[in-house]
Amino acid sequence: MDIIKPRTLSGFMELLPDKQIRFEKLVQILRDTYASYGFAPLDTPAIEDAQILLAKGGGETEKQIYRFTKGDSDLALRFDLTVPLAKYVALHCNELAFPFRRFQISKVYRGERAQRGRFREFYQADIDIIGDGKLDILNEAEIPAIIYKVFRGFGLSRFQIRVNNRKILSGFYDMLGLGDKSGDIMRTVDKLDKIGADKVKLILLEDCGLTEAQADEILRFIAIRGTNGEVLSALEGYLGKNELFDTGVAELKAVTANLAAFGVPEENFAVDLTIARGLDYYTGTVYETTLLDHPEIGSVCSGGRYDNLAGYYIEKQLPGVGISIGLTRLFYVLDEQDLLNPALPSAPADALVLPMTDDMAPAISLAETLRSFGLRVQLYGEQKKFKQKMAYANKLQVPFAVLLGEDEIAQGLCSLKNMATGEQQLLTPQEAAKVILDAVNADIPVILEK
Amino acid sequence: MDIIKPRTLSGFMELLPDKQIRFEKLVQILRDTYASYGFAPLDTPAIEDAQILLAKGGGETEKQIYRFTKGDSDLALRFDLTVPLAKYVALHCNELAFPFRRFQISKVYRGERAQRGRFREFYQADIDIIGDGKLDILNEAEIPAIIYKVFRGFGLSRFQIRVNNRKILSGFYDMLGLGDKSGDIMRTVDKLDKIGADKVKLILLEDCGLTEAQADEILRFIAIRGTNGEVLSALEGYLGKNELFDTGVAELKAVTANLAAFGVPEENFAVDLTIARGLDYYTGTVYETTLLDHPEIGSVCSGGRYDNLAGYYIEKQLPGVGISIGLTRLFYVLDEQDLLNPALPSAPADALVLPMTDDMAPAISLAETLRSFGLRVQLYGEQKKFKQKMAYANKLQVPFAVLLGEDEIAQGLCSLKNMATGEQQLLTPQEAAKVILDAVNADIPVILEK
Repeated sequence: MDIIKPRTLSGFMELLPDKQIRFEKLVQILRDTYASYGFAPLDTPAIEDAQILLAKGGGETEKQIYRFTKGDSDLALRFDLTVPLAKYVALHCNELAFPFRRFQISKVYRGERAQRGRFREFYQADIDIIGDGKLDILNEAEIPAIIYKVFRGFGLSRFQIRVNNRKILSGFYDMLGLGDKSGDIMRTVDKLDKIGADKVKLILLEDCGLTEAQADEILRFIAIRGTNGEVLSALEGYLGKNELFDTGVAELKAVTANLAAFGVPEENFAVDLTIARGLDYYTGTVYETTLLDHPEIGSVCSGGRYDNLAGYYIEKQLPGVGISIGLTRLFYVLDEQDLLNPALPSAPADALVLPMTDDMAPAISLAETLRSFGLRVQLYGEQKKFKQKMAYANKLQVPFAVLLGEDEIAQGLCSLKNMATGEQQLLTPQEAAKVILDAVNADIPVILEK
Repeated sequence: MDIIKPRTLSGFMELLPDKQIRFEKLVQILRDTYASYGFAPLDTPAIEDAQILLAKGGGETEKQIYRFTKGDSDLALRFDLTVPLAKYVALHCNELAFPFRRFQISKVYRGERAQRGRFREFYQADIDIIGDGKLDILNEAEIPAIIYKVFRGFGLSRFQIRVNNRKILSGFYDMLGLGDKSGDIMRTVDKLDKIGADKVKLILLEDCGLTEAQADEILRFIAIRGTNGEVLSALEGYLGKNELFDTGVAELKAVTANLAAFGVPEENFAVDLTIARGLDYYTGTVYETTLLDHPEIGSVCSGGRYDNLAGYYIEKQLPGVGISIGLTRLFYVLDEQDLLNPALPSAPADALVLPMTDDMAPAISLAETLRSFGLRVQLYGEQKKFKQKMAYANKLQVPFAVLLGEDEIAQGLCSLKNMATGEQQLLTPQEAAKVILDAVNADIPVILEK
């Protein structure tokens, strides 16, 4: 037979089992956290009608999209989860209950130029809350709590959820008579972290056509720093001049007011007037999340409030708020920088049962008993020497091996070996299950230090 | 703005939330059951090099595959999970520990002619155990236990796992001097359930060129019925004439010997000499699973033992055993025939917290307390009338609403309303959590009747 050399396309992540198990654990944490806030899972097709996906059209999307025909159909792979959501809500709006909360953790496709750490197929993990015409600010206030729970769940502590409100920025530019330029200004200011204040000023002057005074006023404004209380106080000084600005401040206060009730510590949250998010799409609260020790990674969870989810597909006004985590890239970066919590599981089983007798029935029963406690148990049936069996257990990184020979069977016991310590105990199957459960069910401890 | 009419492509399943939640529950059961037997999750790209996916090539696959170019690349969407597994194992064989057990629950793509109940994008839920050169029969014996656990987990009881061994069939045809025709004969016999014995005989005579005596001998053989013990006894009569046959019988005995230890009841398992599976690929044990009250659905979980997983990609001999569940079609059929267990969850939350005060902090804290018990809790923040809030709770089908007004807050209590019974209790948040947990964490009861 002719052999074809196997390969995986570049830009497509394919993990070895130990890493895949860790990746799946993060997905499970996301799924559980999103569900715990009442978000329903959604699963839209990866292939859609190209016309529908490209309703907004233009720019990078059009270039990067995987588009192809099958028969007469002009098809494309989704490039994000927002457009399919808009289509879904528009299509089913008479059947959905609003507010409609959905999460979707799915792969999206962008045929970008391949480069290290950039993926052409990657997971997005999104939540959105969609209202029918109206949506209470409480939904915007809840988002930081969800972000907080997710990243704590990942075993991280040194992260910060940075929040701003686009109405404050738009209102402020209005005050300066720059309302028509607010989009350009926001996109410029958004680069502050990357390019610094001097370059931002230069672009404001040269490209946006602002006066020196206007640019300075803006730089002074976005330089407002301090605790959440201090920043909110500083904003009070600008109140009463612009309605939009005042609404934005009121919303920002509402978002910050209940952080304690939501269980979000002050240290993981910051009001940050420099956050704008590039997209014109956002109209209210905006979110970014940074790893404090790795600001170079950029935002690992972003989103915001928008007013019109599905304007391309339906007349109905559908406001919403949502966030997105680029999970594949996040995993890649955390792994590369050795920031994955070492307590994340990496073995496919909690225990490997090693039968030492010809009759397999006792080992099978033992494995089933351990499984009945909710454990992941592999039964090893290969006819190999003991040393090879232990080498396999080590290669799989299973935390426990359970040995079952004639002696153990005669006593109704099993030998539980802790693979890390080498310690071996003679226990009943129930006792062994308990020891394993205690070891594997511990919560992932949070890394508090850099 | 121009409106583009939203639509979802035909042949692509897109569910409303209540059904999606049930679908996800089935996926979760599959994931947990597969993991409980020590299978590692695998996630290969949906897009692969077309040359690699089509290494085997030919026939329906070539016609149905979604194939397209991007830049210079000749790409295609996976049409099953076996070919990507073969590629993965061939590519990473020096890094994997063998036996390598993996599960993958992913979408695959086939551009079939659209028809009711046929999908172009559908989930397959596969497990495979791959050996390096050798693989013990115990792995084949374990598969029925996993199938049993999955379908019981789905809340079904009236199903049967039918098992045979291709070596028995091949050996038997050898005995009749029909070794060179065994592939054709097996494919014909495999149709017995669908077309009946008379038509099978006709094809054996006319298309396969068998003699009347040979055809009768085969029909007599596949007519062997009875309990597992009876069928195995009947096979004893043929022993000693053909080595392959004898090996097949020994393997079949090994697979059935430990059913009790694996916890598989006799009623859910049958040795069935008519099962052959069409594919030449299988060389040993083969599995099919039928719903006893709906044989017209055909097999809902099939697979078998094979000797050469990755021959197209690598010289190394990689034997394995695996099964596949076509989950999208299974879900569609179960739903259509009203066979989905009514106890499967359909609400996005276990409880909806309804604040009755302007200050949201107490309701937020209450929701967080309930979540800390592992419950899925939605906080309802919209400014609506009480009646509208209850209508929303009803539309979501949440089992409980939790009302929190001034009176409850003053007492440190909350009002827990059971949405099904209308019963309302004044409880501490901890007591309320306990009541909700007891109601939602009950195992899915198995449907025992038709």
